[in-house]
Amino acid sequence: MNDRLPRILLTNDDGIHAEGLRYLRKAVAGLGTVEIVAPEFPQSAVGHAITLDEPIRVREVLRDGTFYGHGVVGTPADAVKLAIYSLLPGPPRLVISGINDGANLGINVLYSGTVSAATEAAILGVPAMAVSIARKKDPPFELALPHIEALAGSILKHGLPAGVALNVNIPALPKEKIRGFKLTRQCLCKFRERYEQRQDPRGNVYYCLSGEIVPDEADESTDIRSLMEGYVSVTPLFYDLTAHARTAELANLLEDL
Amino acid sequence: MNDRLPRILLTNDDGIHAEGLRYLRKAVAGLGTVEIVAPEFPQSAVGHAITLDEPIRVREVLRDGTFYGHGVVGTPADAVKLAIYSLLPGPPRLVISGINDGANLGINVLYSGTVSAATEAAILGVPAMAVSIARKKDPPFELALPHIEALAGSILKHGLPAGVALNVNIPALPKEKIRGFKLTRQCLCKFRERYEQRQDPRGNVYYCLSGEIVPDEADESTDIRSLMEGYVSVTPLFYDLTAHARTAELANLLEDL
Repeated sequence: MNDRLPRILLTNDDGIHAEGLRYLRKAVAGLGTVEIVAPEFPQSAVGHAITLDEPIRVREVLRDGTFYGHGVVGTPADAVKLAIYSLLPGPPRLVISGINDGANLGINVLYSGTVSAATEAAILGVPAMAVSIARKKDPPFELALPHIEALAGSILKHGLPAGVALNVNIPALPKEKIRGFKLTRQCLCKFRERYEQRQDPRGNVYYCLSGEIVPDEADESTDIRSLMEGYVSVTPLFYDLTAHARTAELANLLEDL
Repeated sequence: MNDRLPRILLTNDDGIHAEGLRYLRKAVAGLGTVEIVAPEFPQSAVGHAITLDEPIRVREVLRDGTFYGHGVVGTPADAVKLAIYSLLPGPPRLVISGINDGANLGINVLYSGTVSAATEAAILGVPAMAVSIARKKDPPFELALPHIEALAGSILKHGLPAGVALNVNIPALPKEKIRGFKLTRQCLCKFRERYEQRQDPRGNVYYCLSGEIVPDEADESTDIRSLMEGYVSVTPLFYDLTAHARTAELANLLEDL
């Protein structure tokens, strides 16, 4: 290993065997020493889960007969924590999570394992980004590679503000149709959701969730609008959920107590 | 059911059979019609996970021979979503998640199933709070009840700003030692964490996480400081992770691309 090359940690939420992770590795292979630590099994929509009360198993995963990475029997946040604290020979300069098949927009950032891996890295003080390509079915990962390489290179050059992770969504479009990168904010738009109620053959009731995001904010600076308009959406995220802008409205809540 | 009474939905992350939930029910029984929809099994540190690709089973849970609530084989966020969309006879006026055994402070709000249940309710437009008592071992839930009842009553009277959920942490102290309620912010303080590496009898390696929060911010308005000083800490949370305050620092990141 060349110690002058930056160490780049790759992870994801679809599991270490996912195709998106192989493409991600290809995207950044020229930028540094690439290390893979990822959940051994798919972990979609696990949110920012971590494993506290149970042991976490780790296995060395081979591909074509050579070491590919560490498979962690846990969540994306577990994989990032364990990589940084215990598995890597030194601290990474950059953590990238993905490539996710399908966009992570609006309040999906709260549910997304892909995004929470990047947020966890930011909490631990490492610049990070989550990358998704905006097509779920037959995702054209190849199209995402030049954008990921360019942005990763820029982060390695400029760094990121302390604690910030980027949530990057790439249109499923050829390079010449993409209008560039755009700094965006998380859309606060609603979801249109419903549960279908069904019965199994034994008569037990179960429910299935379906739904889609409703781009009800006309503001062009949202992640979803920017993506729809053909930009690579780059949303800086920070792990502070405090409702700072709404604190004043709460004055009378505690008044009589 | 008396339709003029407000409907209050209770949930948690420790599962429908948890003692904290029974105490929570006791706390708010006088304020409205109480409905319980909670995970059937403990779900600590699941973060804001939701179940997307699998069916969610629901069972009616009895206690002392009468209907107690719906047990959802899923996460706290699943339970809230399913309750509001499908299980309750009408929309709740308030959702309360807890009582958690042990505080949920600082970046723990990202990991906490208790908190994510309240955030999910806020996303769906229902005023909500997560409540925790600051002792993990033999939690004195009884001490939390008057504070929960008072705050729930105040929310029912004043409402909450749209999309806001409260993260409430109650000291494990008798009422006369508590200095009152305090509006706080999520501490950005660090964790001191480590993984212990072990081997099972077959020689397989596994890791166990341990750690504790380090109250490294001297600011008295943080959740952790306020709790340590004997206040009931009330942190308003909003589901926007955008790093609004840090966007300006990112200007040169996308410049050369």
